[in-house]
Amino acid sequence: MKKLDHIAVAVRDLEQASAFYRDALGLAEEGTETVPEQKVRVAFFRSHAGASAEPTIELLEPTGPDSPVTKFLESRGPGLHHLAFEVDDLEAHMERLKAKGVAFIDAKPRPGSRGSKVAFIHPKSSAGVLVELCERGR
Amino acid sequence: MKKLDHIAVAVRDLEQASAFYRDALGLAEEGTETVPEQKVRVAFFRSHAGASAEPTIELLEPTGPDSPVTKFLESRGPGLHHLAFEVDDLEAHMERLKAKGVAFIDAKPRPGSRGSKVAFIHPKSSAGVLVELCERGR
Repeated sequence: MKKLDHIAVAVRDLEQASAFYRDALGLAEEGTETVPEQKVRVAFFRSHAGASAEPTIELLEPTGPDSPVTKFLESRGPGLHHLAFEVDDLEAHMERLKAKGVAFIDAKPRPGSRGSKVAFIHPKSSAGVLVELCERGR
Repeated sequence: MKKLDHIAVAVRDLEQASAFYRDALGLAEEGTETVPEQKVRVAFFRSHAGASAEPTIELLEPTGPDSPVTKFLESRGPGLHHLAFEVDDLEAHMERLKAKGVAFIDAKPRPGSRGSKVAFIHPKSSAGVLVELCERGR
């Protein structure tokens, strides 16, 4: 386990939510990205530009009705969505955790934002929190 | 705004939830504390012991049926509860944000964990996320 990588927030309107984090809280906006594999548009924030030891806050807006974030918004409304931890070797971590009885939503890694590979742990194995493991692209 | 201070998670059973973060994820446990003013018992985690640039993950277990976390667990189940940002001067930040139209749950600061003063922003002002501002004790 390297570090807490990001905290993801499900939002209905990326511009409106970004305005709160940028203008009210005064966080630094570090760009946006569309992740077709996860059907989301993402805005990245940190408390200070370049504070790379700190996790990013990622606002997720669904890009269509079949996005997993659309389902989340319909059932729970906008709010905190998942925590992501960076690991060195995602496959090895998944095997180690499966051996401990941890259940994954993803049977194998899939593409995430910023060139990463990701896999989600099922909340039933993680005390109710959706937890992502991610390996950064090289 | 100094930095993202912690991510709080509502849990039903502090020992069981701690086991996931400690044994499965391999995070460093940095102790526990009971906060009578907020009617919670808290366990603190970071990815590495002493990684103070990183926010803590705080697991919150209610200490009684009248805890705000009990209400949360009943309505939403266990999961991500709030984000907290550290500020230098809480009263000044509250005044600045109120002037921008941000609504607070707390009319004035109240005691938080580890000797801090805290105030919560209403989720209607923060795109659905419960946001705490905290000022550390000196």
